[in-house]
Amino acid sequence: MAEPFHCDFSGRLFLGHLGNQMLNAADFHSTDRGFGMKYLMSIKRSWVLSRLAIEMVEMPAQYEHYSVETWVESAMKFFTSRNFCVSDASGKVYGYGRSIWAMIDTETRQPTDIYAIDNGAINNWIVADKPCPIEKSSRVKMSENADFVRSIDINYNDIDINGHVNSVKYIEHVLDLWDVAWYREHRIKRFEIAYVAETHQGDKLCFYREPTAENEYCVRLVKTEGETQNQVEVCRCKIVFC
Amino acid sequence: MAEPFHCDFSGRLFLGHLGNQMLNAADFHSTDRGFGMKYLMSIKRSWVLSRLAIEMVEMPAQYEHYSVETWVESAMKFFTSRNFCVSDASGKVYGYGRSIWAMIDTETRQPTDIYAIDNGAINNWIVADKPCPIEKSSRVKMSENADFVRSIDINYNDIDINGHVNSVKYIEHVLDLWDVAWYREHRIKRFEIAYVAETHQGDKLCFYREPTAENEYCVRLVKTEGETQNQVEVCRCKIVFC
Repeated sequence: MAEPFHCDFSGRLFLGHLGNQMLNAADFHSTDRGFGMKYLMSIKRSWVLSRLAIEMVEMPAQYEHYSVETWVESAMKFFTSRNFCVSDASGKVYGYGRSIWAMIDTETRQPTDIYAIDNGAINNWIVADKPCPIEKSSRVKMSENADFVRSIDINYNDIDINGHVNSVKYIEHVLDLWDVAWYREHRIKRFEIAYVAETHQGDKLCFYREPTAENEYCVRLVKTEGETQNQVEVCRCKIVFC
Repeated sequence: MAEPFHCDFSGRLFLGHLGNQMLNAADFHSTDRGFGMKYLMSIKRSWVLSRLAIEMVEMPAQYEHYSVETWVESAMKFFTSRNFCVSDASGKVYGYGRSIWAMIDTETRQPTDIYAIDNGAINNWIVADKPCPIEKSSRVKMSENADFVRSIDINYNDIDINGHVNSVKYIEHVLDLWDVAWYREHRIKRFEIAYVAETHQGDKLCFYREPTAENEYCVRLVKTEGETQNQVEVCRCKIVFC
């Protein structure tokens, strides 16, 4: 259910919460099939979200019930793609999601072979023919002319059990670059994010924004590391409003 | 269930999410009894959270199932007190909550008589003899010597359907005054907040903090209004760590 405190000023679910539910669905779905985070942790492996794209016709309204369906569309040695469909009990589709995941070795932090798990069992779960009628993520192209918008400190509530900023928090911070007055006139049609590096407590995040088409913006997030003051790109987003 | 992305670096539920679940429980419980927000809106009334105190022995861990039970402890003309108990299926109690609510006229924003609703029907729901073994909220006393810690801008994701900062966001922003290193050594034993005024998009929130005993701090939140630059106290908190 779209809980009241998970909804924005207009009474529609925050996109960050929907992203959170997609990640939950991915976690439950993979756990049920022997590919869950808990099991992977025990063999020093972990899923890492590489890309997420969400495209919505409509956002669930306050107190509406919605379901998130998920399936694995394809898998390769180092990446797997998992799709999402958000709908209600009557079959009305609110929107879709696409995600790309890598599997890493938690000690070396390097990509590892997904097919090495349980003799390539992921192949048993691939549903190649189920439609997900939104575009795949593409490389977010930005020039060097993006405007610096703001910087924020990374705080306790941004950090999850992995010790770094949780994937959904980036989405919330990026959407906070626009104000309530903007959202009164625009809704998010598509949100796309590509994760590059991790951000930790004590880092500062800088946001650079560039308009790339009518109602379309790209945003680059760069962290300044607490100790070294190194600057590193951590993710890029593309947001299409309508 | 304590969802993974609702848990902090230590794998324990964020206090903000627990506060959110308490407010949900209050909403469902009052709706089931004819005192819900939806009905009140239709007669130009609304519940306004005045105080919330949460005291925890332990926070639910990632993937643990927990329930939030709520009941009305007492009611007066302008205020009602509602308690919470957080437990698991085996009966283990994680902690308790206490809250005080006012009912306001949504046009005048003035307090209105709770007993005027449905001929004082709230009396039917009072459970006076159920124990809630944590202290009631008391006035948070602060001197004029509290230290300015930081200021933040109020953004899109802070604002709920009422058009102002949602009650839980204040809790998150206050707890963000301490860093991960602090939470590695301390857990929140009791958190108390008294709401005074509303904060809107475009306002700036300033945080003033004062140590009041060993492992006890009080925090005053003051908004600087976007247009007028007026300074107004919006809430006060007391946090006891252990």
